[in-house]
Amino acid sequence: MKVYFNKQYLELDEVRISPFDRGFQYADGVYEVMRTYYGRLFRAPDHLERLKDSLQAIGIKYNEVDKLENVIYELIKLNEFDENDASAYIQITRGEFYPRKHSFPPENVKPTVFVSVTPVKEDRNKFPEGIKVILERDIRWSRCDIKSISLLPSVLANQHAVEKDAEEAIWERDGYLYEGSHTNFWGVKNGVVFTAPLSHYILPGVSRKVVIEVCRKNGMEVKEEEINKPDLKYFDEFFITGTNTEVKPVIQIDDWKVGDGKPGQITKKIYSLLMNYIDLKEWLF
Amino acid sequence: MKVYFNKQYLELDEVRISPFDRGFQYADGVYEVMRTYYGRLFRAPDHLERLKDSLQAIGIKYNEVDKLENVIYELIKLNEFDENDASAYIQITRGEFYPRKHSFPPENVKPTVFVSVTPVKEDRNKFPEGIKVILERDIRWSRCDIKSISLLPSVLANQHAVEKDAEEAIWERDGYLYEGSHTNFWGVKNGVVFTAPLSHYILPGVSRKVVIEVCRKNGMEVKEEEINKPDLKYFDEFFITGTNTEVKPVIQIDDWKVGDGKPGQITKKIYSLLMNYIDLKEWLF
Repeated sequence: MKVYFNKQYLELDEVRISPFDRGFQYADGVYEVMRTYYGRLFRAPDHLERLKDSLQAIGIKYNEVDKLENVIYELIKLNEFDENDASAYIQITRGEFYPRKHSFPPENVKPTVFVSVTPVKEDRNKFPEGIKVILERDIRWSRCDIKSISLLPSVLANQHAVEKDAEEAIWERDGYLYEGSHTNFWGVKNGVVFTAPLSHYILPGVSRKVVIEVCRKNGMEVKEEEINKPDLKYFDEFFITGTNTEVKPVIQIDDWKVGDGKPGQITKKIYSLLMNYIDLKEWLF
Repeated sequence: MKVYFNKQYLELDEVRISPFDRGFQYADGVYEVMRTYYGRLFRAPDHLERLKDSLQAIGIKYNEVDKLENVIYELIKLNEFDENDASAYIQITRGEFYPRKHSFPPENVKPTVFVSVTPVKEDRNKFPEGIKVILERDIRWSRCDIKSISLLPSVLANQHAVEKDAEEAIWERDGYLYEGSHTNFWGVKNGVVFTAPLSHYILPGVSRKVVIEVCRKNGMEVKEEEINKPDLKYFDEFFITGTNTEVKPVIQIDDWKVGDGKPGQITKKIYSLLMNYIDLKEWLF
């Protein structure tokens, strides 16, 4: 598989990350995930803007973020992947420095830039099956708005989910549900759609933003409010969103079966709205 | 420089960490720092026990921790470093796996094991100069007892310290001071020595443990209690401890000069007690 590494297109096994890379020793880096529809990266400006925000938040200087869009198209071509369904992963770290020390290395140390692309297999005409999620006490740091590679807590939470035959873990902090280990979390109550407001406790999801847009454009009410755990029982439906997840209905939370245990109608409608938005291709221009 | 990587002794630039190593993409790993005195690793059993605890806490299976002690001695020899003053760095991650996904890879994926050794330059007969520290709001996750490589918050805090001409940042959580970005934190009040108790909010420092031991053995009272920020002014002295830091007097916290702005006498005594303990070599047997 061809990947991009520090201005070069290489075979994956030609890429050598140093053990003294700050990304390896200190989780000192950020990442981004994007995907294509109709051969183009979906809402690329949103993703690249978020990547710039994350870089700035942790003080990594890298001015070529905008060029990464073409890097991804080049990788899709080099790998002969279907340009219509590819997922891209970008990671930028503070670079390699020896000897190991916590504070930033000198200015002349260049960031490490890695990009890879993977094919996505899915049938977008099929509304996804309902999934189970678990609730997990939020043990993460308090800057979850930064898309950093400091992901160990999310790894452990998602693993807990898998061990309980669930697909995702939803973070609960002080009694409120914020987001999943790698998705945003939503509830529907009396036709009103709820998701946590932007803050230091959630990632500003691009799919979250798009879903809010399409819901509101179609006359649905969206409230950006955290869902309180004791209030879960008053909700009719739940779902999660993400770049690769798109919209997935949640039919079970821990041992509790939501409603009749089937994906909800409003979730299904929101899935359709998102797919229509993608198919209308207005985002392409 | 020769390093150890997955059972091999290699030149540093021969080591290739994969961009799909879980340590690089997810901070999914742990580390340990040890150092030698008199040619032997100081309190190696404590360090190796802590490494095992950290591995277990995040569910990485690696049964050869005890062999790493000899790996370090071999590296010191191969590099022709002075065996009396060397610092060792061990990092173990959950290994390499593609495609990227949060939950654990299959059981047959082997952990990545990396060990390096660096010479330490210092004159142990000289009591170190006093340093400045800053207070930093603790934004870390709530499992700081695990020595994980998920260190981005500590990187940012230590960088803030450096930018303010300080050497260390002390984490403050809910008004209490817990520990530094890579050291433990101590105060002295009316001859009594204070440091935060073991909990999920601090790393169980090996130097912390040794300093408590030598203080108590020499009739000094040690209280394991967090220091409340408003109470700082009632303290006479402060210091930090760590494997490479040993004991360092703190003479300034943010803009406040502690006492007469000189290292305290009790800190000096504790430094001597630690050096004596090292020189007596009882820990060797």
